[in-house]
Amino acid sequence: MLIHPDRLFPADPETRGIARSLYERAAGLPIVSPHGHTQAAWFAENQPFPDPAKLFVQPDHYIYRMLYSQGVSMDDLEIGRPEIKNPRKVWKLFAANYFLFRGTPTRIWLDYSFETLFGLTEPLSEKTADLYFDTIAAKLSAPEFRPRALYERFNLEVLATTDSPLDSLSHHAALRKSGWKGRILPTFRPDPVVDPEFPGFADRLAQLGAETGEDTTKWAGYRNALRKARARFRELGATATDHGHPTAQTADLSASEAAALYDKIRTGKASAAEQELFRAQMLTEMAGMSVEDGLVMQIHPGAVRNHNRKVHEKYGRDTGADIPQATNYVNALRPLLDRYGNETKLTIILFTLDETAYSRELAPLAGHYPCLRLGPPWWFHDSPEGMTRFREQATETAGFYNTVGFNDDTRAFLSIPARHDVARRIDCGFLAKLVVEHRLGEDEAHEVARDLTYNLVKKAYRL
Amino acid sequence: MLIHPDRLFPADPETRGIARSLYERAAGLPIVSPHGHTQAAWFAENQPFPDPAKLFVQPDHYIYRMLYSQGVSMDDLEIGRPEIKNPRKVWKLFAANYFLFRGTPTRIWLDYSFETLFGLTEPLSEKTADLYFDTIAAKLSAPEFRPRALYERFNLEVLATTDSPLDSLSHHAALRKSGWKGRILPTFRPDPVVDPEFPGFADRLAQLGAETGEDTTKWAGYRNALRKARARFRELGATATDHGHPTAQTADLSASEAAALYDKIRTGKASAAEQELFRAQMLTEMAGMSVEDGLVMQIHPGAVRNHNRKVHEKYGRDTGADIPQATNYVNALRPLLDRYGNETKLTIILFTLDETAYSRELAPLAGHYPCLRLGPPWWFHDSPEGMTRFREQATETAGFYNTVGFNDDTRAFLSIPARHDVARRIDCGFLAKLVVEHRLGEDEAHEVARDLTYNLVKKAYRL
Amino acid sequence: MLIHPDRLFPADPETRGIARSLYERAAGLPIVSPHGHTQAAWFAENQPFPDPAKLFVQPDHYIYRMLYSQGVSMDDLEIGRPEIKNPRKVWKLFAANYFLFRGTPTRIWLDYSFETLFGLTEPLSEKTADLYFDTIAAKLSAPEFRPRALYERFNLEVLATTDSPLDSLSHHAALRKSGWKGRILPTFRPDPVVDPEFPGFADRLAQLGAETGEDTTKWAGYRNALRKARARFRELGATATDHGHPTAQTADLSASEAAALYDKIRTGKASAAEQELFRAQMLTEMAGMSVEDGLVMQIHPGAVRNHNRKVHEKYGRDTGADIPQATNYVNALRPLLDRYGNETKLTIILFTLDETAYSRELAPLAGHYPCLRLGPPWWFHDSPEGMTRFREQATETAGFYNTVGFNDDTRAFLSIPARHDVARRIDCGFLAKLVVEHRLGEDEAHEVARDLTYNLVKKAYRL
Repeated sequence: MLIHPDRLFPADPETRGIARSLYERAAGLPIVSPHGHTQAAWFAENQPFPDPAKLFVQPDHYIYRMLYSQGVSMDDLEIGRPEIKNPRKVWKLFAANYFLFRGTPTRIWLDYSFETLFGLTEPLSEKTADLYFDTIAAKLSAPEFRPRALYERFNLEVLATTDSPLDSLSHHAALRKSGWKGRILPTFRPDPVVDPEFPGFADRLAQLGAETGEDTTKWAGYRNALRKARARFRELGATATDHGHPTAQTADLSASEAAALYDKIRTGKASAAEQELFRAQMLTEMAGMSVEDGLVMQIHPGAVRNHNRKVHEKYGRDTGADIPQATNYVNALRPLLDRYGNETKLTIILFTLDETAYSRELAPLAGHYPCLRLGPPWWFHDSPEGMTRFREQATETAGFYNTVGFNDDTRAFLSIPARHDVARRIDCGFLAKLVVEHRLGEDEAHEVARDLTYNLVKKAYRL
Repeated sequence: MLIHPDRLFPADPETRGIARSLYERAAGLPIVSPHGHTQAAWFAENQPFPDPAKLFVQPDHYIYRMLYSQGVSMDDLEIGRPEIKNPRKVWKLFAANYFLFRGTPTRIWLDYSFETLFGLTEPLSEKTADLYFDTIAAKLSAPEFRPRALYERFNLEVLATTDSPLDSLSHHAALRKSGWKGRILPTFRPDPVVDPEFPGFADRLAQLGAETGEDTTKWAGYRNALRKARARFRELGATATDHGHPTAQTADLSASEAAALYDKIRTGKASAAEQELFRAQMLTEMAGMSVEDGLVMQIHPGAVRNHNRKVHEKYGRDTGADIPQATNYVNALRPLLDRYGNETKLTIILFTLDETAYSRELAPLAGHYPCLRLGPPWWFHDSPEGMTRFREQATETAGFYNTVGFNDDTRAFLSIPARHDVARRIDCGFLAKLVVEHRLGEDEAHEVARDLTYNLVKKAYRL
Repeated sequence: MLIHPDRLFPADPETRGIARSLYERAAGLPIVSPHGHTQAAWFAENQPFPDPAKLFVQPDHYIYRMLYSQGVSMDDLEIGRPEIKNPRKVWKLFAANYFLFRGTPTRIWLDYSFETLFGLTEPLSEKTADLYFDTIAAKLSAPEFRPRALYERFNLEVLATTDSPLDSLSHHAALRKSGWKGRILPTFRPDPVVDPEFPGFADRLAQLGAETGEDTTKWAGYRNALRKARARFRELGATATDHGHPTAQTADLSASEAAALYDKIRTGKASAAEQELFRAQMLTEMAGMSVEDGLVMQIHPGAVRNHNRKVHEKYGRDTGADIPQATNYVNALRPLLDRYGNETKLTIILFTLDETAYSRELAPLAGHYPCLRLGPPWWFHDSPEGMTRFREQATETAGFYNTVGFNDDTRAFLSIPARHDVARRIDCGFLAKLVVEHRLGEDEAHEVARDLTYNLVKKAYRL
C-alpha cells in the first residue's frame, strides 16, 4: 500500500479522530481549481495522455530539479525536447532515484496517483520501474484515462487555465461550443505584454495592437488593447487575472508620467529601474480595470526567474531554476492600495514565496483592507509543512475568511486530486487541533472545513 | 459553555496533565500589567462603563479591522464618533459577523469575558445578539462592574497606563490622593514630543517648554524639559518609558551635531532622513536619562502607522490600519549599545512585530547584553501561536530569564484577565512539553511558571 | 538522574516508540565530525585536560554570554586570561547561575557530559558546586580522560579542526607520524588572509608569501600562494575549506579587475565596499580552486562579529558578542553559481544564521544546483527547536539527500557526543513523525536515519 487512509493527520489519537471526521465530509466535495497550468487543448481534443515519462517526468520541474540537484543530467532525462526518444530509459532513471523524494510533497502526490489511478501498491524503485512503466502505459490508452473522463472522475467542478493575452483561446472557444459539461475557464495573465524583460517584448506589443485593432504605440491605445483583451477572456468565462512579477511593487503615476514611461519602455530605452516602475504601474492599471470589469486579480510575486544561467540558455525558461527572494508587501502595495484599497468591488488575492510575510505583512494587510485576500501556500510552500505554517501564521490575524481555499497551480493534471487531498487533510488536521485545544467548536470546525474546501474559493474567484 | 477548563493546553494527554498542574498554581497569582492603554480616569472617577457597543466594539481595533476587511462599513460601526447613536444596531452587526473571529485571539478574549464576567454561555451570533446586549448592559450598571471593583476582582496588583509628557496626569495624582489601594502607574511615552512626524510637533515642543519652564527652542533646554517631565512621572510612580518608533534605529551624535539637528527639526526644515536620525538620536538620549533616573525603557518598533490613507483621513490615527514591517535590530541598536550596552543599571525591553528577529537578532542580543531584555509577543503576535513561536524561537538562545513575563498592552480593560490567562496557559503548555521531553524537571517547570507569570515582570519593570 | 533515555523524543506515545526504535540503531554509529574547533595539539600531546572551570566555562562562549547577559562580570569569570587564578570560585559562580540555562541546548550538552563522563546525577547548583568541581577535577587526571582515550570512547571516526593557512599544522603532522589510529584532519580556513578587515592583514599576506615562496604583492602570486597552502593542507588529510564571511556575497570579476582590486586591498587603500567585493571575489576564487583540487567548500555567512565594542576592546575577538544578521543568498551567490554552479565535481555546503532562508532560498537553491548542499543548523540554531525547524522547513524542497548530516562545530571537545546525540534524537523524532503521519515507511525511516547520521556526512565531506 502506498497511501494510508490516515495519512497527514496529526499523531495524537483524539486529534486524529476529529481530523478524520472533518475530512470524511470534506473529501466528497467537488474540486474547484481556480488557478493552474493545465491546457485547454487536452480537454478540447480529448486525446490520450502520452507515455509515463512524458506524462510524469518531463513536464514536472519539481521532479527534474531534484534529480538535477543530485547530479542526474537534464539530457539523460531528455528535458526540453519536444519528444522523448527513450521514455523507458528516462522512467528508469527517475525510478532509481525516487528515494530522493522522501519527505517531499512530490512523493505524496505521485504515490496518490500511482495507487488511486493505476492500482500500483509496491513502492516505485529501480526494481519496480518496468512494472510501473508498463502498467501506466497500458492504462493511459484506455478511454477512462482520457482528459474529459478524468476531469469527471476527479469530481472537478471548474478548472482554470492561465493564458497570454496573445493566445487565441481557440481551445476554450471550442470547448464552449462542444456541449461537454466540463467547465474549463481561461485566466488573463498579461505578463508577456506587461513585463518589458520578456524576450521579444516589442513584437508582442505590436501583435497585441494588431489583434485588438488598437494603436499600441500609444499609452492610451495600449490600455485599450488590454481592456479589449480582458473582455475577450471574460466572454469565454474568465473570472480572474494573474500577475507574476519579481516583486510586489506597485506605482501610481500621473497619466502623463505613465505615458512617457510607456514610450521609453516600448522603444527599449528603459533602464532596469524604469522597467520595474512600469511593472509596478501596470499592477495599479490592472487593479483599475478590475474595478471596471470585475475580474479578480491574483498577484504572484517574488520569484527570481531563470536563476541558473547555463540551464536557462540550454533548456529555456521555467526549467526548475526559479528561486524565491525576500518580498516586501507593506510598502510595495501602498500606491495601489492608496488608490483602490477601499474598493469593496475589487478582489486582489496575494501570494508569496516569502513565508516571513505571512504574520508580519500579509495577514495584517488582508485583515484590514476590504479588497485583499490571501492565496494559499504557493509552489515551494504547497506542502504539508508549508500549509501548516500558513494556517498557524496567518489565521490569528486574518482569520479564515480572508483566505480563499486551495489552488493546485499545477501543470500535472493527474496530480490535481492528490494536491487537493493534501490541502483538505492538512486543513482538517489544523481545525482538529483547534477543537482539541478548545479554541473552536466541533460543529464550527465542520462549517469551516466546508468553507475552506468549497465555499471560499467560489466566492473569492466569483465562480 | 464558551470556555473549557483545558483550553489552549497541548493535546497529548500526558503533556496536558502536566500543563494543567503547572497552570493550577500559576492561575492564582496576581496580575501585574506593566504596559497597556487603559485610562487612569476610569479608576479616578470610577464611573460605570458604557453600553456593550461602546465598551467592546468601538475602541477595539482588532474587532473593527476584521469587520472592515470583510466589507463592513466603518460608518455602520460608528467608528471614530464621540458617541454611538445606535449601540444595539452596532452590536447586532458585530454579532452577526462574530464567526469571522474563529481562530483568532479576539474570539478567545471575548468568550472569556462573556462567560466569566457576564455569565453568557451561548455563542454570540445574530440570534443571541439581543440577549448579549441586554445582559451586558444590565450588568454594567451594577456596582461590582465599576472600574475599581473590577480591578480588585481581576486580582490586579499593578496596572500601568501610557501617557504623553504633555499629559497633566491629574487622574494619576487624584488616584494617589484617593486612598484607594489599587496601584495605577503612568508610563512616560515621549513620542509626541520626540517624533517630528506627529502633527503639530512644533506646538507640542512649545507646550513642553511652557509646562516645564525650560527653553525648548534650545537643545539643552529641550533635554532638560524631558528630564523634568520624566521626574514628574516618577513622582507619580512611573517606573518605565515607552517608545513607539517606525524602526529600531539609534544614533550617537556629538553634542554639537545633535544640537544642530534639533534646530532643523524644531523649525520644520528637516528631511525625512533627518527626522529618522532625530528619532534615532532620541532613543540614545532616553537611554542616557534612564541610566540617570532608573526608568526602564521599552522600545516598540516596526509599525507602519496609518497605512490606509483614506481611513486615516476620515477616521484618524490608530484606526486599525497599522501594518508591521521588517525590522532590523542588529545594526540599528548598535550606536546606543556602543554607548550604554554594558550598563548593568540600565534595562531596555525590546519588542518586535517582525517575528524573524526572535531567533536571528533579538535572542542573541538579549542573550549577551546585560541591559537588554525581550518583551513578550506584541500586538498581532499576542496570540497562542505567536506566544508559542516566541518561546520556541527565543528560549534556546536567550533562556527564560532574559524575558519579562507578559504585557497585555490593551485599551480593553475587561480583556485583561483573558489575555493574561492565555499567556499563562501557553507558557504552562510550553513548559509541560519541555518536561515530557525531559528537557526540564517538573519541579523546575513550576519555578519557571511562577517566574514567567509573576517574578520576572516585577523585576524587569522594577515594580 | 540528569538525562532520561527518552529525552528529546516527541510526546505522542506511538511517535515516541518509533523514534526510540530508530534511535536505537542510529545511536551506535560512529561519530563523524567534519567541522569544529577542537585543537590538534590536544591529541598530539595527549595531556590531561585542565580544571573544570578552564575546561567548561572559560572557552565556552555559550556559557559566558548568558552569564554576562544577566549581569555576571566577565572579570569574575576570568574570561580572556591565559590562566584562571581561582577556578573553584569561577566554577561556583557558574554553578549558582546554572538555572539560567533552563530551556537551552547548553544545559542539555552539559548534563549529558556531567552524567555520562563524570557520573554526576544531582543537578548542578550552588549546593552541588563543590561536589561537581571535585568529582570532575579528580577524573580529569585519570588516563581514561586523556584526549586520545576520550576520542576512542566517544566512538569518533574522524574529527576535523579549523586552521589558518598560516598555521604550521605541526600537530597534525605529528599526529600522522605518531601511529595513533585516530583520524584528526585540518580544514583550510583562509579568512585571515582573505578578509581585509582582519587586524594585521598586510603582515599576514607577507607571511603567506614567505611561507609559500610566492610573491604575494601580485594577484597571481597571491593566488598561487593560496593554491600551495591548500595543497599543504590536503597532504595532511584536509578534505574541506571553510569561509566565515559577514555576508554570502560572491563576485566574478575579470582577471584584470581582480588584480587591480587586490592591489588596493593589499595596500590598505580599499573602501569598505571594496573590501566586501574582495571577499566576494575570493569566494569565487576558492570555488574555482575547489573545482581543481576537490576540497569541499563550506560557507558560514551572516555573523556581525564583535558586536559589543567595549567587550571586544577589553576581551578580544570571539568573546560571545557575535550577532546574526539577515542574509541574502539568492542574489549573493549568483556570480559564483553563474560560473561554477553546474560543476558536478564541486561541493559547496551552505550554512545560515538566518532561518528565514531555509524555505525561501536555501532549500530551493540546494534542491536545484548540483554543487550545493545544506549544512546543518548552525550555532544559535544548533538546538532541538532549531534542528526541528530546519527539517520542517528545508526537507520538503531540498529532500534529505541535499543535506549533509550533523556538524558539532564546537571547541568543547567533551560536548561532542552530547551534540551528536541531540541531532540523532531530533532527526529520529522528525522521521518518526513522518512515519506516524504515513509520509514515510518505517523501513525507509531506518535507512534515512542511518544516512543522516553517517552516510551523508561521509559522502558530502569526501571522508
